[in-house]
Amino acid sequence: MIVDGTPRRSIWWSDDHRVLQIIDQRHLPHRFIVEDLATTEGVFTAIREMHVRGAPLIGAAAGYGVAFAVADAKNGASADDAARAAAARLLESRPTAINLAWAVERVLAAVLKAESPVEKKSAADKESDRIVEEEVDRCRRIGEYGLAVVEELARGLDRPVNILTHCNAGWLACVDYGTATAPIYLAHDRGIPVHVWVDETRPRNQGARLTAWELGQHGIPHTVIVDNAGGHLMQQELVDLVLVGSDRTTRRGDVINKIGTYQKALAAYDNDVPFYVALPSSSIDWSMSDGRAAPIEQRDRDEVRYVQGWADGRATEVLVTPPDSPAANYAFDVTPARLVTGLITERGVCEADPEAMLSLFPEANTNG
Amino acid sequence: MIVDGTPRRSIWWSDDHRVLQIIDQRHLPHRFIVEDLATTEGVFTAIREMHVRGAPLIGAAAGYGVAFAVADAKNGASADDAARAAAARLLESRPTAINLAWAVERVLAAVLKAESPVEKKSAADKESDRIVEEEVDRCRRIGEYGLAVVEELARGLDRPVNILTHCNAGWLACVDYGTATAPIYLAHDRGIPVHVWVDETRPRNQGARLTAWELGQHGIPHTVIVDNAGGHLMQQELVDLVLVGSDRTTRRGDVINKIGTYQKALAAYDNDVPFYVALPSSSIDWSMSDGRAAPIEQRDRDEVRYVQGWADGRATEVLVTPPDSPAANYAFDVTPARLVTGLITERGVCEADPEAMLSLFPEANTNG
Repeated sequence: MIVDGTPRRSIWWSDDHRVLQIIDQRHLPHRFIVEDLATTEGVFTAIREMHVRGAPLIGAAAGYGVAFAVADAKNGASADDAARAAAARLLESRPTAINLAWAVERVLAAVLKAESPVEKKSAADKESDRIVEEEVDRCRRIGEYGLAVVEELARGLDRPVNILTHCNAGWLACVDYGTATAPIYLAHDRGIPVHVWVDETRPRNQGARLTAWELGQHGIPHTVIVDNAGGHLMQQELVDLVLVGSDRTTRRGDVINKIGTYQKALAAYDNDVPFYVALPSSSIDWSMSDGRAAPIEQRDRDEVRYVQGWADGRATEVLVTPPDSPAANYAFDVTPARLVTGLITERGVCEADPEAMLSLFPEANTNG
Repeated sequence: MIVDGTPRRSIWWSDDHRVLQIIDQRHLPHRFIVEDLATTEGVFTAIREMHVRGAPLIGAAAGYGVAFAVADAKNGASADDAARAAAARLLESRPTAINLAWAVERVLAAVLKAESPVEKKSAADKESDRIVEEEVDRCRRIGEYGLAVVEELARGLDRPVNILTHCNAGWLACVDYGTATAPIYLAHDRGIPVHVWVDETRPRNQGARLTAWELGQHGIPHTVIVDNAGGHLMQQELVDLVLVGSDRTTRRGDVINKIGTYQKALAAYDNDVPFYVALPSSSIDWSMSDGRAAPIEQRDRDEVRYVQGWADGRATEVLVTPPDSPAANYAFDVTPARLVTGLITERGVCEADPEAMLSLFPEANTNG
């Protein structure tokens, strides 16, 4: 998508193809810092310290982390050893990121299958590039199918379609387009007027920091709101559509996503506002039916007690609560399928129920 | 309630009764600063700049603001003139605060009715003191009636009653006890174990800053959470009761309160968690039935874009959003009566419907 007027992805090769480049997202929206990656260890740090975040982007970066390890190998056996060691190291960077393991295994397999060190390096690069292109393709397809939903709502309106989103399921979390944002970018680029209500998404403010920045750079009208405001906006008929991402979706359509998603779904349901979830099928957990079975990560309580921002020209963190007040930090919640109008996947839109999901992904039937 | 082990109110006379004292709440929870008030202009500034906030406390302070104006009058006529001028000035400090107008008129009437300057000053002081004591009495009664609700929930539990609250309807907003917090303080003081989930309440974080501080000072177990988390906690059966205040309640029981209250009510309803609203009857608007008719104040967008806190030993404000991202700041929302389990008033608990409310307040029938 667009940054300062230039098309960008969240991970790319430098012009001379010698180093990989990423946006160090810790500094957004206040500073746009490009970081070079040329070693496994550099990729490890970028993932672990959250220079990059979002499951698809983490997976893409990790693939290259394996590829880098193969570059200096003297022979096939040492290339394989280096790739295995890199894979093991990278898996430690964010142990719960499911895409990371999947991407690392995939690039490692490509290395092991190839013959010479040169071929192994080339196979690793190609497999990593393929992962990136597949992510982009999946997001673009999600965008196309979601676009139809937006177009339908735009029909007969003489004002922009008002879309509320939560957290950042944007291109920064993916490689391009994003998931929840993909239909928004496509609608805007094709001349359908949209306006986005951006939930700030406490505690880490991914909405206020990242989604607002993405949309602003791409020229999409948007307004940041506190997480408390969405219900009121829906009561006032100021929201036509809620569009969010998903970290994990169960086979019956329960949606595990950033904390607060459930409250937005309740408000949408109470006000007859369509509530759609955009997701790549790779995030569907066909082995789980009832989302309440999913473990909910509890993160550092200081993410609640402190807020990060920008003051006096530098990144600053302020304490909001009394110094000795305890805090709890639940990272995700579960939106039951009954509150979900539809799932937007790379194969099309379906209702959040097992039959509809299996009709789009019949191959999952054997995995259930 | 208790601060540093000492019983406190949010407004009080100094020991020598020469100056009025308040807590400058802008500095909480990071600094406890007591401010002296001895002039109408001092009261005006304290209200306007939000050293004091909360409808009952604003009303109480404003009453004394009129009383101060009478102190130096040479004769009865000049005392009346001074009181009228002070009243007019104070009404400008927070034009939408309904309690303020009511308190100012009441003290002004007492001044006009008395004879000599000395009697007028004495009448103003007494009327102001009476307003304060009435507020305390109302909150204590709300606490007693709400205590019965908490006791009922505690019966048979072998763990603390988990109560979720939103914003600050605490003693800082009133004079003592608070409204939503009154049942909590009484339960704790009488040995019923309670634990409070404190919504941080963006954008101004009155929960994280003020409610958490109040509860911590009084020794009540509590945990600060982001506004996104309550729904998840209720799904996990970690909330036994939601207890909030109200800025205005309509004759049919719609509740206009801090933005985000509606989302909490939806989550409570979806999870069969009782949702109670504590309010003095002075905040019931008998002239309004459908809460959606109430105008919803939009405040400065920078309250959303920036967060205030404490860093490097001083109050600091950090920008969270991109510098050019627009924001919207709706201050209140409307919780429809159908989501409210009960209203806790100084005359007892009733359902949120017109008949039940009128049976507690039959005198309102003539005002309808």
